Amino acid sequence: MRGKLETPPAGYVAHKPDSLRTYLATKPRLALHLGGKPDDWTVEEVGDGNLNLVFLVHGPKGALCAKQALPYVRLVGESWPLPLSRAHFEHIALVEEAKHAPDLVPRVRHYDPIASMTIMDCLDGHIIMRKGMIAGRRYPLFATHIARFMAETLFRTSDLALTAAEKKRRVAELSGNVMLWKITEDLIFTDPYCEAELNRWTAPQIDPDAQAIRGDMKLKIAISELKERFLSETQAMIHGDLHTGSIMINAESTKMIDPEFVMYGPMGFDTGAVIGNLLLSYFSQDGHAKEPGARRDYQDWILAQIEAAWTEFEQRFLALWETAHAGDAYPKHLFADDAGKKAYAEIQRAYMRRLFADTLGFGGAKMIRRILGLAHVLDLESIADPDARAQCERRALNLARQLILERQKIASTAEVADAAREMLKK
Amino acid sequence: MRGKLETPPAGYVAHKPDSLRTYLATKPRLALHLGGKPDDWTVEEVGDGNLNLVFLVHGPKGALCAKQALPYVRLVGESWPLPLSRAHFEHIALVEEAKHAPDLVPRVRHYDPIASMTIMDCLDGHIIMRKGMIAGRRYPLFATHIARFMAETLFRTSDLALTAAEKKRRVAELSGNVMLWKITEDLIFTDPYCEAELNRWTAPQIDPDAQAIRGDMKLKIAISELKERFLSETQAMIHGDLHTGSIMINAESTKMIDPEFVMYGPMGFDTGAVIGNLLLSYFSQDGHAKEPGARRDYQDWILAQIEAAWTEFEQRFLALWETAHAGDAYPKHLFADDAGKKAYAEIQRAYMRRLFADTLGFGGAKMIRRILGLAHVLDLESIADPDARAQCERRALNLARQLILERQKIASTAEVADAAREMLKK
Repeated sequence: MRGKLETPPAGYVAHKPDSLRTYLATKPRLALHLGGKPDDWTVEEVGDGNLNLVFLVHGPKGALCAKQALPYVRLVGESWPLPLSRAHFEHIALVEEAKHAPDLVPRVRHYDPIASMTIMDCLDGHIIMRKGMIAGRRYPLFATHIARFMAETLFRTSDLALTAAEKKRRVAELSGNVMLWKITEDLIFTDPYCEAELNRWTAPQIDPDAQAIRGDMKLKIAISELKERFLSETQAMIHGDLHTGSIMINAESTKMIDPEFVMYGPMGFDTGAVIGNLLLSYFSQDGHAKEPGARRDYQDWILAQIEAAWTEFEQRFLALWETAHAGDAYPKHLFADDAGKKAYAEIQRAYMRRLFADTLGFGGAKMIRRILGLAHVLDLESIADPDARAQCERRALNLARQLILERQKIASTAEVADAAREMLKK
Repeated sequence: MRGKLETPPAGYVAHKPDSLRTYLATKPRLALHLGGKPDDWTVEEVGDGNLNLVFLVHGPKGALCAKQALPYVRLVGESWPLPLSRAHFEHIALVEEAKHAPDLVPRVRHYDPIASMTIMDCLDGHIIMRKGMIAGRRYPLFATHIARFMAETLFRTSDLALTAAEKKRRVAELSGNVMLWKITEDLIFTDPYCEAELNRWTAPQIDPDAQAIRGDMKLKIAISELKERFLSETQAMIHGDLHTGSIMINAESTKMIDPEFVMYGPMGFDTGAVIGNLLLSYFSQDGHAKEPGARRDYQDWILAQIEAAWTEFEQRFLALWETAHAGDAYPKHLFADDAGKKAYAEIQRAYMRRLFADTLGFGGAKMIRRILGLAHVLDLESIADPDARAQCERRALNLARQLILERQKIASTAEVADAAREMLKK
């Protein structure tokens, strides 16, 4: 389902480098940040995003990144309309995330609602994490950064941190971002499980796997139940697209970008996106190794990151529950005595257990859509040999299926890691 | 948590009989409906509701009921502020319900947003179902009526019937009704499980039971998990207060009234309210019987209504799923072949199973709050002898606890009926 092409508001101009330079020259704070005079600035449309215009602006003193929404998908054109309002919702998300994890998101310097444009600090010195992982790079702070980002943003926007009234206000505030979520609903939870026009995969190698998944009723029941949770659960404000392509990184710094799919939804959709995309990278490594097994150490590093990220996420989430619980869910005063404290620990264990099951389910869903659906990942796409690529993809599909179907049984990231290692032997 | 006392909008007047008569005289369609001249009309403030002003107006030709919100709880006064907006939300609910079950709700003739007043057809000839049940009356059409009301209103406002975009729009539309939900959150899911100021119960007889529940950690864990579902699940538009005091009834007709607690929430909160309140009536009957066991037949009738209502609800819900599925949840085209149809039946069984578990959980919660919390039910309150009342209440509490704790295990309303009968022997 695609909407109608929207007429932008009066004053909206899709920027080109020169018009953006002129625009920035009228904003004293931004001009000061760049330094020098407008003619000293270099403005470059990087065309990195699929959906939006992205410009990098460098001046003698500083650099900025301007992200502007078009009324359609940039990569496709006017035949795929997409509302400009996504810039508004993304801005809300960036501001909220910055309250809780200011060092882990790009700093917003300016937001222009008419232009549907956000101007942020440039992330020079960072690269897209997905690309770094294809090159086999390690990021020693990644696990602790992503764990803190997820714990802070998910806990503090949930019914554990907010009053019901405040949370419902925020649910309503974001409720118009439906065209973005429709993309997720179709491309993640529906299309890969049927013969959809937009699907593509490594053919003919993966044909039998794609067909098997289209005929796998247990899996289709499970994915449909996950879709229902995605449609009706308002557990927390989620980033909504938290894969390794939405993470800019280097050895010291990690920035989570592009939250335009922001919504109130199940926390496991974010935590699952992270784990699912790390697993995609894991399985892709054999396709990038110069000789068989040459990336085993790196693959072990990836699995260690999954374990570390989840473990620290859980610890931080529970620590926030200890220190920052001010919401209406799970009122602590019902559990004040010694027996109550034991019971409350049981509540927390059950909560994290449910969240882990969601993580595995949504994580598996994210993996499958990247192999059988419209949007693929560079980790796998950049493997030139289709036979080698197909082998990586088949392993990823099989693990993903296992994560979804056994999401209630798998008890730990260690079990996930074991299952991933086993899959490499097949 | 109580809000601030709101200043009504300019033009708002809390009506008295005479001002309402004058008001109605200015509305030609309403005046025509009443017939005769304003002086021919009788206007009576019935004071039936706890929260609002309710007037009955009778003219030579017709009768009307005017329900006006005050900026506070009518029964308590200005010390308990309550937003006028509840009239707005109730009006939305009445209009939506009328689309799907027009014969089962009062017909709305007029809505005045400034006065926060809805004017409906008078339900002469109906009585509050709770009162009828105290008198031991049977309503042969009740089960089929309530089943149809619940199936129609819940299915057609869910992700099974609506696109995600339309459902999210409606979630947002109702999202301001938070002060009403706060009452539910506190009085149903929190207060009865701790020493809360507003709690009351049959003392000293029920003291040990109240204390046992405050110390029952398994129950408090379960009630807190149900509260979380109430806070974050947006499964369907629910009435939000669907007890036997919100049902006006006679032998031929059933009308569900007072949906001012309307929200997007778990369907089981409505279905549970119905079953929980029927069970409260069931246990109260011994307190009204002229001699021991004199109401056994009537009690069996009540249990039969629970079974009939759930069975027909389930049938109708599944029939709508067959004929009126147009929503984004559980897309049928993924399950088009023979194996798919079997799998889809499994999806539906699992859905109804989860809904039944919610029904039992929320139903039990509704029973406990009526015995240990602020708001009690006439079924039990009208039992003059406190020992007799306490015996009824204890049985109800014990069954309620069982329903909540075993909500995943109890498989049918027949099992609920058996457990209820067993409880009478204790």
